[in-house]
Amino acid sequence: MDLNADLGEGFGRWVLTDDDALLRIVTSANVACGFHAGDPATLQRVTALAASRGVRIGAQVSYRDLAGFGRREIDVPPDELAAEVAYQIGALRVFAEAVGATVAYVKPHGALYHRAGRDPGQAAAVVEGAKLAGVPALLTQRGNALDLVAAEAGLTVVGEAFADRGYLPDGRLVPRGLPGALLTPAEAVAQAVSLAEEGVVTAIDGTRTRVAAETICVHGDGPDTVEVATSIRAALIQRGIDVEAFS
Amino acid sequence: MDLNADLGEGFGRWVLTDDDALLRIVTSANVACGFHAGDPATLQRVTALAASRGVRIGAQVSYRDLAGFGRREIDVPPDELAAEVAYQIGALRVFAEAVGATVAYVKPHGALYHRAGRDPGQAAAVVEGAKLAGVPALLTQRGNALDLVAAEAGLTVVGEAFADRGYLPDGRLVPRGLPGALLTPAEAVAQAVSLAEEGVVTAIDGTRTRVAAETICVHGDGPDTVEVATSIRAALIQRGIDVEAFS
Amino acid sequence: MDLNADLGEGFGRWVLTDDDALLRIVTSANVACGFHAGDPATLQRVTALAASRGVRIGAQVSYRDLAGFGRREIDVPPDELAAEVAYQIGALRVFAEAVGATVAYVKPHGALYHRAGRDPGQAAAVVEGAKLAGVPALLTQRGNALDLVAAEAGLTVVGEAFADRGYLPDGRLVPRGLPGALLTPAEAVAQAVSLAEEGVVTAIDGTRTRVAAETICVHGDGPDTVEVATSIRAALIQRGIDVEAFS
Amino acid sequence: MDLNADLGEGFGRWVLTDDDALLRIVTSANVACGFHAGDPATLQRVTALAASRGVRIGAQVSYRDLAGFGRREIDVPPDELAAEVAYQIGALRVFAEAVGATVAYVKPHGALYHRAGRDPGQAAAVVEGAKLAGVPALLTQRGNALDLVAAEAGLTVVGEAFADRGYLPDGRLVPRGLPGALLTPAEAVAQAVSLAEEGVVTAIDGTRTRVAAETICVHGDGPDTVEVATSIRAALIQRGIDVEAFS
Repeated sequence: MDLNADLGEGFGRWVLTDDDALLRIVTSANVACGFHAGDPATLQRVTALAASRGVRIGAQVSYRDLAGFGRREIDVPPDELAAEVAYQIGALRVFAEAVGATVAYVKPHGALYHRAGRDPGQAAAVVEGAKLAGVPALLTQRGNALDLVAAEAGLTVVGEAFADRGYLPDGRLVPRGLPGALLTPAEAVAQAVSLAEEGVVTAIDGTRTRVAAETICVHGDGPDTVEVATSIRAALIQRGIDVEAFS
Repeated sequence: MDLNADLGEGFGRWVLTDDDALLRIVTSANVACGFHAGDPATLQRVTALAASRGVRIGAQVSYRDLAGFGRREIDVPPDELAAEVAYQIGALRVFAEAVGATVAYVKPHGALYHRAGRDPGQAAAVVEGAKLAGVPALLTQRGNALDLVAAEAGLTVVGEAFADRGYLPDGRLVPRGLPGALLTPAEAVAQAVSLAEEGVVTAIDGTRTRVAAETICVHGDGPDTVEVATSIRAALIQRGIDVEAFS
Repeated sequence: MDLNADLGEGFGRWVLTDDDALLRIVTSANVACGFHAGDPATLQRVTALAASRGVRIGAQVSYRDLAGFGRREIDVPPDELAAEVAYQIGALRVFAEAVGATVAYVKPHGALYHRAGRDPGQAAAVVEGAKLAGVPALLTQRGNALDLVAAEAGLTVVGEAFADRGYLPDGRLVPRGLPGALLTPAEAVAQAVSLAEEGVVTAIDGTRTRVAAETICVHGDGPDTVEVATSIRAALIQRGIDVEAFS
Repeated sequence: MDLNADLGEGFGRWVLTDDDALLRIVTSANVACGFHAGDPATLQRVTALAASRGVRIGAQVSYRDLAGFGRREIDVPPDELAAEVAYQIGALRVFAEAVGATVAYVKPHGALYHRAGRDPGQAAAVVEGAKLAGVPALLTQRGNALDLVAAEAGLTVVGEAFADRGYLPDGRLVPRGLPGALLTPAEAVAQAVSLAEEGVVTAIDGTRTRVAAETICVHGDGPDTVEVATSIRAALIQRGIDVEAFS
């Protein structure tokens, strides 16, 4: 099982993620590329650290929105969005290649993740940006618009599930702000194990629901996220599950 | 003789340079990379057009300064500046490679051009950024700090001269704002011919002064710049001088 | 009849609107406040020029979006949007008050204009921002969501019509990109006269349609906009219509 | 004695200062205005909280530099800088006035603080911006260029001293990065008392040095700054010194 987290989400003086700690836990690093977070010196530092620890590097691409941390949908025309995605990937890749690594995948951030997951036009723009940049894989939830568009375009899709988010019976996430959207640390550990062993979560109504999980996202910007991520990794290893980057 | 111009210097709704016209004249395109100008869609368009016409593509890197168009010196710490330079090169390269081209050289823009020309610390940062990104060549004026640092670091330096700027007897430019800083169109054409044929300019005091010119910069953002650039190209060809990218 | 135009829509090196010419024509100046365009020095210059010519000053507020010129909808939470609107008004007002003038009204720009016109939540945020800043009036199209919310909140609404845009029979604009969206200069002059004399336009299907017009917008960022605006002003005056700021 | 601190120095998702805690300690709040930090919603929140607690509100103005947190000098032409300063003050004032307060003073931030302290041209620009905006007072160190220019222009200068920074025998600060630049918490408390009681510090070489201190700055962005600031306030009160805003 692959574990991924969002990294390098500071900007200049501001720091958000404990990159050093998380890079001891995850196997795939979604590195912010400068549009919602991530100044060039941070990209360089996080990328070098990830490479030195054998953590796979991905481009966490976003709408151009420092003020909103990429969490507000922006109606960017698809051709412009494709160029923005490619721009971010290229900027990150220079630092990956400087340490002998590569940008292995793309993961949209925040509002772009959700918008591309339901809007085929924005999904196609993300995919076009990834292909422009020659990136072969993409992280998203199985079955959404981005999954379909990416697979059709020949990208490798890595199905993502979430340890600390509640699920609806149809396999979608409980929207943030609603009851059950966020799990407790103990529930998150249990859900990660269930995802890794059976590809199943217990939905908010108690239903056992199949969720494709080739990678599990652990969040990196909350107060006790490093502890939770550490517990998840330990629980998986204890159950005999290999924690390693997707292939 | 190589002719270079700054291109793609708009941002979103704002347009500054007549990229289409200039890409019929010059042999090297200094493409703005987003820090003083240049949105991703413009990078993509200009890069594709340059490649389709066989124009060499260079990264016109800048301080991060949209509000000041990169014309104000910013005291960026050298390690951050190196990362910023590499970031910009990487962003541009994705579009060059998508059309089968490459980023052949780096040219600092505006205040960074002047600062790196006299400040070895900032010069070293620019060079480090270029090397991080694997770019082999750099455009600057011969004899300045950037020339020295770049040559020492193993970069190919392409000596740049200006058609439309007046020179001091010591080979430096007359600073903008002083009398004689800007030449008339006719003087610019004559100076370009003199640079190409003899490597010489007539300085502001009438002295014949040697100026190394492996590439001549024609400006692209003034009212009649396209006409002047066209005249320079025609005059060089009429004198039997090959107008082609530096090798 | 009041004539209004968008002014000061450059940013640093980039210039878009011919502010000097337009300030000889219009009676109300929608000054860009820095979020989609408008650096502080431009705000100061345009505001001083408007005041010296007796042109009323309004705050042209926008989503924070230099890269998209405020033309892309952004899902800004209403409380943040209200603060952003107030921020922009305050920034402009300092320059108005420095020359003995005031910010007389607010006009949303681009995507915010359209979004607030149909979305009561965003409309309420714009109105809250205006009230926070103590601005008494607001320009928008009569009958839309922003008109209703603003009127209910006690703001003076100034009904805006467009000289150079085609109308649907129900009084809404033909969306940009569709046939008939943009009128020719001669049609724009005729429509301005018809709006001023009768409060009527000829819709795209030939229907005579009532459109409340307490101010007519003339656009300032196209190739021949100054000429068209000049013709509109002349035509109104020739018909004996006073061209003066709304009261 | 007045105590001041920098507040509201986050941006969107990023938070830096513990505004709530500091607003229980200080008597003057230097509120970031958006150029180095400070989104509009934060300005509104901090300003309202300051007003509700009777804390004086000042505009902490900066170079336009989110990426560098305003800590890099930028060669902004003086007329542009004056407009930028006024713009920031106006943006803040709208929130102050909305809660019945006012912007009582200006304090330059970071690189602008240091540059204006030694460069009369930049000092004059800051002063011009303050006067454009009608702000009557300015915080800076006594005896520097900004003090002189501001006093000559008729602004009230409030002499600032630092609790936690070491001083040279001539009354200037030990530059950051040099030994003795930063004091320990205990030293900071002792220095604040010495400043308040005698207007004296013990310089880095042991010399007793006069330092005009009408306000003492306590820093708000370090790990234990709230504790240090609390101790300083308590120590002053214990010595019978009134802690209240400058008059």
